[in-house]
Amino acid sequence: MARRRRPGEFALIARYFAPLARGFAGAGGLVSDNAFLPADAAHDLAVKTDTVVAGVHFLEDETPARIAAKALRVCLSDLAAGGARPFAYQLSLSLPKDWREAWVAGFARGLAADQRRYGIALCGGDTVVTPGPLTVTITAFGRVPRGRGLTRAGARAGDELWVSGTIGDGALGLLAARGEIASAALEWRYRLPEPRSALGPRLVGIAHATADVSDGLLADAGHIASASGLAVRIERGLVPLSPSARRLVTTNGRLWPTVLGGGDDYELVIAVTPRRRAALLAAARSAGVPVTRIGEFEPGRGVVLTVDGRPVRATRTGYAHF
Amino acid sequence: MARRRRPGEFALIARYFAPLARGFAGAGGLVSDNAFLPADAAHDLAVKTDTVVAGVHFLEDETPARIAAKALRVCLSDLAAGGARPFAYQLSLSLPKDWREAWVAGFARGLAADQRRYGIALCGGDTVVTPGPLTVTITAFGRVPRGRGLTRAGARAGDELWVSGTIGDGALGLLAARGEIASAALEWRYRLPEPRSALGPRLVGIAHATADVSDGLLADAGHIASASGLAVRIERGLVPLSPSARRLVTTNGRLWPTVLGGGDDYELVIAVTPRRRAALLAAARSAGVPVTRIGEFEPGRGVVLTVDGRPVRATRTGYAHF
Repeated sequence: MARRRRPGEFALIARYFAPLARGFAGAGGLVSDNAFLPADAAHDLAVKTDTVVAGVHFLEDETPARIAAKALRVCLSDLAAGGARPFAYQLSLSLPKDWREAWVAGFARGLAADQRRYGIALCGGDTVVTPGPLTVTITAFGRVPRGRGLTRAGARAGDELWVSGTIGDGALGLLAARGEIASAALEWRYRLPEPRSALGPRLVGIAHATADVSDGLLADAGHIASASGLAVRIERGLVPLSPSARRLVTTNGRLWPTVLGGGDDYELVIAVTPRRRAALLAAARSAGVPVTRIGEFEPGRGVVLTVDGRPVRATRTGYAHF
Repeated sequence: MARRRRPGEFALIARYFAPLARGFAGAGGLVSDNAFLPADAAHDLAVKTDTVVAGVHFLEDETPARIAAKALRVCLSDLAAGGARPFAYQLSLSLPKDWREAWVAGFARGLAADQRRYGIALCGGDTVVTPGPLTVTITAFGRVPRGRGLTRAGARAGDELWVSGTIGDGALGLLAARGEIASAALEWRYRLPEPRSALGPRLVGIAHATADVSDGLLADAGHIASASGLAVRIERGLVPLSPSARRLVTTNGRLWPTVLGGGDDYELVIAVTPRRRAALLAAARSAGVPVTRIGEFEPGRGVVLTVDGRPVRATRTGYAHF
């Protein structure tokens, strides 16, 4: 039971790490996806660090190229949520003692492919050998117009909540990758997420607040709400699902908490005033990414999930990191 | 024997990672301590990532505050070598499964103390739990006058090689921390390095090339030589030693390879033309850091160690990361 008394990730950050960032405006109190450092006259530098550990954040049997892609893309997803265009990254690679050169070659090929795909370059890092599992830390850099980086704070009561793409594929895809359900399409969505790098920068000047869906739709929409001092209401019937996910929840309703709370979707949740709805739709069209209105922000606090307009109790509000 | 055929750290970087940085000028081909990103009109942003693993880069029994300090300071040492003034950092903390809140509190206190000491602030990061050992990755940010960041490349034949402080205390301190020799002063130097943050920025416009002594004096001076397309000659009798280190090598000459090749000193090696010697000495005086001339750069390649002017075979040219 002693373990239960330890603080969770967000409490730990609030208690011990947010005070260390208090004097640094661009850290935004560590409540958002990115830090913003002053860059040239026209831009801020968005910075995001993410660590993935074998067996925790990806399956132990994953190919080196897909591990490289996943490690990069979870960071690029955060930059997209900040409205930033990525251009470079640093890589810290902790190799297990029995590492093989062929593995490193495959990992580098994966990085090279994503460098071309996203227009980014490696700019430094570190390589060590660990007695533990393979661990990859990426710090990614993007540019955003000066002072206009998007954060989780800034939603206003009356704003609509929109989401890109479809929700639940990541968490259902993990079940598929584990062999618990059968769906190659969903498994692929888990193994190789697609950050919304084309959409994010187009939301600058349109969205009041954004986050990427890494912890789960309810959790990440909730992060915007709490950072903005508001409540958020989400109607389950409006949440966009892929055909595969739709089929699964239709035959097994107990998968809904996985869909809404499972995370790993790397879509964007977006707070936008109804007056800018046309601008949002134009941005999404230009990025080639569908967006769907699924709820709204209101005075109060917390996340209210409704089914056909009636509030229900959400049984899983996000992936608990520890 | 299959293990022996794997490339070392530098070969791995050259073969797989340097090609990924080819299109990014500020990465400098990954041969220097820092990357330089364009920042405001007057500055570049120096960026450095370092990872430390429990039991590999620090002793398992180390206090959380000193682990925090060491993780930060190895990065600040690289920024100093780049001539950059540090101002912020990102932290990725991989906690072992049995982590305790008191440990995190001590770690955060160590960060807070060094934030005050070096004038820096936390600006973001990630916290995960790993089945492996405690692992800390820091990405530190500093500012350097635009286009003038110092790298390992740029030394010229005829340049003198200077070094700050004293050499060998880090590696001898590791022996002391392991109880193999007795010296509290040296043990402290290993457990809590002091980056040359006051000296580094003062070398901008004076030094042709710099590196910090993390891999070992011979290795790091050799890195400048190879990045500059030169050889470097070092006279052992000129290498500055602390009184404790002097006593140890005087009674046990077999410790010389540890002193010259052991690493973890976090001093700076500096290539400077004889004409700027007075400027170097003035910068060192103003930083309150002693500097000593120990050799020179010449056409050719490799590291030549001399004792009383006669070349000797160096038995250990640096710490092999793996």
